[in-house]
Amino acid sequence: MTPPRAEPPILASASTVRARLLAAAGIEVQQMPSGADEEALKAELGGLDDESLALALAEAKAMTVSAAHPGRLVLGADQLLVMGGRRFDKPRDIGEAAAHLAAFSGRKHQLVTAAVALRGGTVLWRGAERARLAVRPLTPASIDAYLAIVGPAALDSVGAYQLEGPGAQLFERVEGDFFTVLGLPLLPLLEFLRGEGVPAWAC
Amino acid sequence: MTPPRAEPPILASASTVRARLLAAAGIEVQQMPSGADEEALKAELGGLDDESLALALAEAKAMTVSAAHPGRLVLGADQLLVMGGRRFDKPRDIGEAAAHLAAFSGRKHQLVTAAVALRGGTVLWRGAERARLAVRPLTPASIDAYLAIVGPAALDSVGAYQLEGPGAQLFERVEGDFFTVLGLPLLPLLEFLRGEGVPAWAC
Repeated sequence: MTPPRAEPPILASASTVRARLLAAAGIEVQQMPSGADEEALKAELGGLDDESLALALAEAKAMTVSAAHPGRLVLGADQLLVMGGRRFDKPRDIGEAAAHLAAFSGRKHQLVTAAVALRGGTVLWRGAERARLAVRPLTPASIDAYLAIVGPAALDSVGAYQLEGPGAQLFERVEGDFFTVLGLPLLPLLEFLRGEGVPAWAC
Repeated sequence: MTPPRAEPPILASASTVRARLLAAAGIEVQQMPSGADEEALKAELGGLDDESLALALAEAKAMTVSAAHPGRLVLGADQLLVMGGRRFDKPRDIGEAAAHLAAFSGRKHQLVTAAVALRGGTVLWRGAERARLAVRPLTPASIDAYLAIVGPAALDSVGAYQLEGPGAQLFERVEGDFFTVLGLPLLPLLEFLRGEGVPAWAC
């Protein structure tokens, strides 16, 4: 008898970048965007430190999906951008993306990236990592030129940049794990998943 | 009158990964693999420290191409893998790739990546960066499974891994710039290229 084929982990996120990072490492996931109200959670939990907040948001997203699929392994993730004590949300439009990049110009900021794995509403694993990024001095004209090249994709990431694409032109220095910059603490998450038998070839 | 369109930089390397890194950042290059005899150079220059050797190899590759195209900007690059004083060459076959991965298993190694820019045989810029990588303990079976998944692409990089793909499964920790791991000191190289007016939108 063939054993039943295990169902893939659920990624409680609509992020194509996160799904692509996992797929590249051999992890196929089923994406189910979470219904968690991130804005309300951020307002409620704003007093937490960065790592705790990112973990709480990742867990909340995974929890709403886990409630509907109690037998499945569910992954949640979150990323915060912090600069000098201020937290930046994903830009809502190109004007806000330009304002954020002007704020980052010539300064250092940090990305805090968290992931949580749940099954049946129980946390099995959580991990958070931090990367430090130095943006080069940008003129308003160079910000406009960059946003014209990137287009609406600028609104897909919290920093309005795509380090894996034209966004590399914005940076002087990146310290920390590339995966953390792209949106997952990938290496520790892969270690957890190998312990769960995923993917079979790497275990 | 329209100004003449500038010819793109020449990349004195057959590496698709390097060309892709540059293209993602908006730099189109013309690839011309160098005729430099790397093995002879390594034997001759083996007494140099890692950074100096990587820079010398990058320069030698660019120099052979620059001699044939004296008016053009030519980029050369090289990457060395070092572990405990031993330098590893690109594996020549899957058996050697497996032997290298067995040597890296449970240990840390370093990648030293250099690039050089020339015009008319004159060095305009050079830069080198170093990344530190910790490989998790690998069994012979997990090495075989990994190489079966990756296939001949394992022979394309000095470490026999593809960190941007299934190779992420091999690592416990990566410290240093992702671009350095993939084969270019990209951020400093982009800074130099912006000074040369490439790409126009980022200058």
